[in-house]
Amino acid sequence: MTYAQNLRCRECSRDYPLAALHVCDFCFGPLEVLYDDDGIKASVSRKTIASRPANLWRYREFLPCDADTAINIGAGFTPLIHAKNLGKALGLPNLYIKNDTANPTWSFKDRVVAIASSRARELGYEKLACASTGNLANSVSAHAAAAGMEAVVVIPNDLEAGKVLGSSIYSPTLVKVAGNYDAVNRLCAELAGTRNWAFVNVNVRPYYAEGSKTLGYEVAEQLGWRAPDHCVVPIASGSLFVKIRKGLNEFAKAGLIDEPHTRMSGAQATGCSPVATAWAEGSMNFRPQRPDTIAKSLAIGNPADGYYSLVQLKETNGACASVSDDEIVAGMKLLAETEGIFAETAGGVTIASVKQLAAAGRIDPDELVVAFITGAGFKTAEAVADSLGPALEIDATVESFEAAYEDREGVPA
Amino acid sequence: MTYAQNLRCRECSRDYPLAALHVCDFCFGPLEVLYDDDGIKASVSRKTIASRPANLWRYREFLPCDADTAINIGAGFTPLIHAKNLGKALGLPNLYIKNDTANPTWSFKDRVVAIASSRARELGYEKLACASTGNLANSVSAHAAAAGMEAVVVIPNDLEAGKVLGSSIYSPTLVKVAGNYDAVNRLCAELAGTRNWAFVNVNVRPYYAEGSKTLGYEVAEQLGWRAPDHCVVPIASGSLFVKIRKGLNEFAKAGLIDEPHTRMSGAQATGCSPVATAWAEGSMNFRPQRPDTIAKSLAIGNPADGYYSLVQLKETNGACASVSDDEIVAGMKLLAETEGIFAETAGGVTIASVKQLAAAGRIDPDELVVAFITGAGFKTAEAVADSLGPALEIDATVESFEAAYEDREGVPA
Repeated sequence: MTYAQNLRCRECSRDYPLAALHVCDFCFGPLEVLYDDDGIKASVSRKTIASRPANLWRYREFLPCDADTAINIGAGFTPLIHAKNLGKALGLPNLYIKNDTANPTWSFKDRVVAIASSRARELGYEKLACASTGNLANSVSAHAAAAGMEAVVVIPNDLEAGKVLGSSIYSPTLVKVAGNYDAVNRLCAELAGTRNWAFVNVNVRPYYAEGSKTLGYEVAEQLGWRAPDHCVVPIASGSLFVKIRKGLNEFAKAGLIDEPHTRMSGAQATGCSPVATAWAEGSMNFRPQRPDTIAKSLAIGNPADGYYSLVQLKETNGACASVSDDEIVAGMKLLAETEGIFAETAGGVTIASVKQLAAAGRIDPDELVVAFITGAGFKTAEAVADSLGPALEIDATVESFEAAYEDREGVPA
Repeated sequence: MTYAQNLRCRECSRDYPLAALHVCDFCFGPLEVLYDDDGIKASVSRKTIASRPANLWRYREFLPCDADTAINIGAGFTPLIHAKNLGKALGLPNLYIKNDTANPTWSFKDRVVAIASSRARELGYEKLACASTGNLANSVSAHAAAAGMEAVVVIPNDLEAGKVLGSSIYSPTLVKVAGNYDAVNRLCAELAGTRNWAFVNVNVRPYYAEGSKTLGYEVAEQLGWRAPDHCVVPIASGSLFVKIRKGLNEFAKAGLIDEPHTRMSGAQATGCSPVATAWAEGSMNFRPQRPDTIAKSLAIGNPADGYYSLVQLKETNGACASVSDDEIVAGMKLLAETEGIFAETAGGVTIASVKQLAAAGRIDPDELVVAFITGAGFKTAEAVADSLGPALEIDATVESFEAAYEDREGVPA
């Protein structure tokens, strides 16, 4: 069972049934899932949640599909680590890393796809499709396989090899488009009008988007049932950024945590920074950009939730950073060398942004800060492969080792 | 605190202190950690364990180092999935997959290294070293980074690119040896005698080996506090294979589960199958082999726990499969296409072995079977890259999509 009641337009508040709909027929506003909040509050407790398996279905009352028949490949409940070394380096003693690389297909997209695929199957769809910068294609392909559905995943033709292989292995229909993500996204929006398929981020987007809020639930539970003071979140479409806060607010509404006063800050690559640019200019209207950055999973030049991201930055007294490609690579290495976490380029954006915001005084050293790492580094191996140190090449003898090692020790690191 | 009392020789039962020792001075038998079993039993309960964070330190009473000061990057408590689709394909309705690809460095080695690195730091070591076929090097590099220790990782020079990069990112001293794993291992055994470093799988091996038993604890807890009927485990050194059963036995001794009657079966690649070959010949003495298989993480021709693995196969009425490189790739694809899990070559060995053992009647269809997937598929991308289907290449128009898709639909899959 689910406490979802209907879809509601975020702009004009018109209601719609829980179908494969995503845009208001009247005002073109986005549709969101509306729940029976009282029913949720009456049925959940910290204790029942804590007693359930370590995946996102432990929050079943807050989700828009039946958890008993859901597609569960183990998404969610990833580690939250107190990043003491990195925190020391950045002057943030209470810095935590939410490590979503430890998901079944090694990115946070397993959260949104778990929900979207489950709801799509409930609605009778046999094909699961998406426009993707790579991580989403991996997750859609994997969940469709587990669900016994067919997958059609549409990606730009310049993606990293790891992200392509990470879809192919599940045998979807893989479509490479000569164009960037925004072109791929437009194409899928058109196809959603003619094909009776569930496009996870088009016609079933209201359900899909709900997956991201589980990051808010998890962080609150893992901190001992409290909201963080400050979150730093990478912004691509902006959906993740706004849904994490939605999760915190819903937990408060259900009486599981106190009212959150969490500051929400964003992280973008300078090469695709429509939200950060608008924020820096003090504008609530972003201008679409043509992306040019190594952070391809964030390369959405015309973000669907860009406006709502700007609203949230303002409402929560957050800030939005933008960082260069060199800073991204440095951020990936800093995270790996201090905390043993190998993030993809988007994670480099997040860490470099935390650094930038801390240095600028936009993060208070006393705050409990959570930085969200959304995908695994092997997926974007190309971005760092050339900037890593060389190996010592030796024969299988102690003498050969000693010679190479002493030689290496003589060289300043 | 810890309930570890001393080290004890598995052969002659002589006792040693909890130092960096791994071999008995008298009989050259392997040393194992001995615990205060009564103390453990008096202090643990299902409830206290279940109330703790979702990582392997939830089993702190059973581990040989102080969990409060341990190096925790989030290893353990990975998903256990009821593999209904794969089970149907193999005639095993109660087949489960323990998915250890969802670890911080995406293999089960995070378990053993979490323990070894924590104990090494307790013992005052500043450098963490290992001989590795790749996954271990990744995990040692990551844990050393988080621990503020230096890492020296020694690997064969023919490893997959993903496994090399997966170490380099953490900036260890990376040493590539012209030789196979057995040569690398011999070299590190020699170096352990002259360097005052903690070699995780040499001088601190007794602590290291304890990490694997957490897989037994987790599976039992995740099944609702019961042991599985049958486990299928890949055999490299054999340590994982014997320690999973040790975990189940310890849980029973502590009163957390009933006495296990778990059958333990092994999985090897035919190209490196010393245990499977001895088993097929009805011998308790394996002959070392020169490995030649794509399953490089299992390519240990002279396994340290080979004899104990054979003993366990006999004691538990298990069986040991060996599978070809083609079967390994087919196993990887089968797992991905049915359950949405992308395993490395070792996982292909496990799935192909489950298939072989089920077909031969060595696994009973009524048994609750757990197959252990120990590492993520992107680490061995080379093994499958050439055998995956091609993508459709299109322009960013509906017409281009329709043409390519209809064309594809006309072709039998």
